[in-house]
Amino acid sequence: MSLIAKTPNPPYYAVIFTSHLSDDDEGYEDMAGKMIALASDQPGFIGIESAREGLGITVSYWSDLDSIKNWKANLEHAEAQRLGREKWYSSFKTRISRVERDYGV
Amino acid sequence: MSLIAKTPNPPYYAVIFTSHLSDDDEGYEDMAGKMIALASDQPGFIGIESAREGLGITVSYWSDLDSIKNWKANLEHAEAQRLGREKWYSSFKTRISRVERDYGV
Repeated sequence: MSLIAKTPNPPYYAVIFTSHLSDDDEGYEDMAGKMIALASDQPGFIGIESAREGLGITVSYWSDLDSIKNWKANLEHAEAQRLGREKWYSSFKTRISRVERDYGV
Repeated sequence: MSLIAKTPNPPYYAVIFTSHLSDDDEGYEDMAGKMIALASDQPGFIGIESAREGLGITVSYWSDLDSIKNWKANLEHAEAQRLGREKWYSSFKTRISRVERDYGV
């Protein structure tokens, strides 16, 4: 089970990735796990939260926009994105946002 | 099943609400449904996406910060927030962010 990410005081960045899977999800779970592990090793990575209930929502947190750009361009990640577009996702949306305030317990 | 929200061109705002439920979830589902309906009626509301898989992630989209502030202060919502803090959630985090860029299919 995914935990609530430990994030620093704002500002930091959140990439909100929302998706629906197609009928062809062969290889998807493996790749999703690999990408979470790989993302966690990137400079500027802060944390990640994920849940799927029909709709899948994954929010990854980053220290700055350059780190997000580098992660998007990462070669293994680019290949995963290609497979996502062509095979696994029937629809998806990526939103890049700047966290300005947070609170909670 | 929740859909991917239809959102306008950025900028707009995303409230990322992440939570774990406690053992006492009596009344939670009803209230969650009511709050989605009530939020949808507020000025500045754009859309909402939600999934729970152990971790719950709900992202609501708003046109501006004032609309988010007004929604947080809404009396029925304030009562739901109180019950959430005191009863339903073992932990939660709310992050208010400004969407700067988005893409997808």
